[in-house]
Amino acid sequence: MEAGRINVLLVEDNPAHAELVTRSLEENRTQIRVHHVSDGEAAIDYLMRQGRFSQPETSPRPEVILLDLRLPKIDGLEVLRTVKSTNGLRRIPVVVLTTSAAEPDVSRAYELHANSYLVKPVDYSKFTRLMHQLGFYWLEWNERPNL
Amino acid sequence: MEAGRINVLLVEDNPAHAELVTRSLEENRTQIRVHHVSDGEAAIDYLMRQGRFSQPETSPRPEVILLDLRLPKIDGLEVLRTVKSTNGLRRIPVVVLTTSAAEPDVSRAYELHANSYLVKPVDYSKFTRLMHQLGFYWLEWNERPNL
Repeated sequence: MEAGRINVLLVEDNPAHAELVTRSLEENRTQIRVHHVSDGEAAIDYLMRQGRFSQPETSPRPEVILLDLRLPKIDGLEVLRTVKSTNGLRRIPVVVLTTSAAEPDVSRAYELHANSYLVKPVDYSKFTRLMHQLGFYWLEWNERPNL
Repeated sequence: MEAGRINVLLVEDNPAHAELVTRSLEENRTQIRVHHVSDGEAAIDYLMRQGRFSQPETSPRPEVILLDLRLPKIDGLEVLRTVKSTNGLRRIPVVVLTTSAAEPDVSRAYELHANSYLVKPVDYSKFTRLMHQLGFYWLEWNERPNL
């Protein structure tokens, strides 16, 4: 892991959304590196450093996890539950980033200690603006937990 | 409680900081109302609707709690612990807003499920900018939990 790097774990199965989030966050910020995985099983492998992420240099601890809910293999809420019930992971802020504004999803995510819940704007420019503000908030203002 | 109102509970014993936070958040947003209490006991009374906050109209549920840590009577971490272990309160996002960047405070706050941890900038214009971005993030983008 390079010194001064700020790592983000993005768990997102929609390639267009993943591309947009990555581009928005990395734009104009050379120190930010978005690590993208596209299903819940890969997210858990990354965080538990197992399987193809068994080498710590392939899986640096993220400053924040951006987590979609509807995911192949293992559901986003299950990833959230795993993070928040595992020592060494639970302090990592998890921001749910999903198309679902359904009340059961929102409630369940907060019950499982999601740090924040964002609904992806349908409008492209609004989505980009949200990503910029999210980047500022979590990567520049928010105090990083010691893991 | 007026319809359409967005309520913020600010727990802050420094009058200058309270004034600055309130002014920054309410500025240009007529629907936002900051409810300010200056010690941990009053914060718990507000949230539990007891004592001088026993009438629900005096203690509308906040969209977010901004919580200082060093507080008279009951410490901020104890307020946090109470919120996060109480049904009907635990889903409310709690943003720690403090002068302390000390590692034990940061760790303890995240362990107790603080949603975010912000260190107050010493510089006035930076403080104001943070308040604006915090307001955007938590009051406009973040999905409100159903309490």
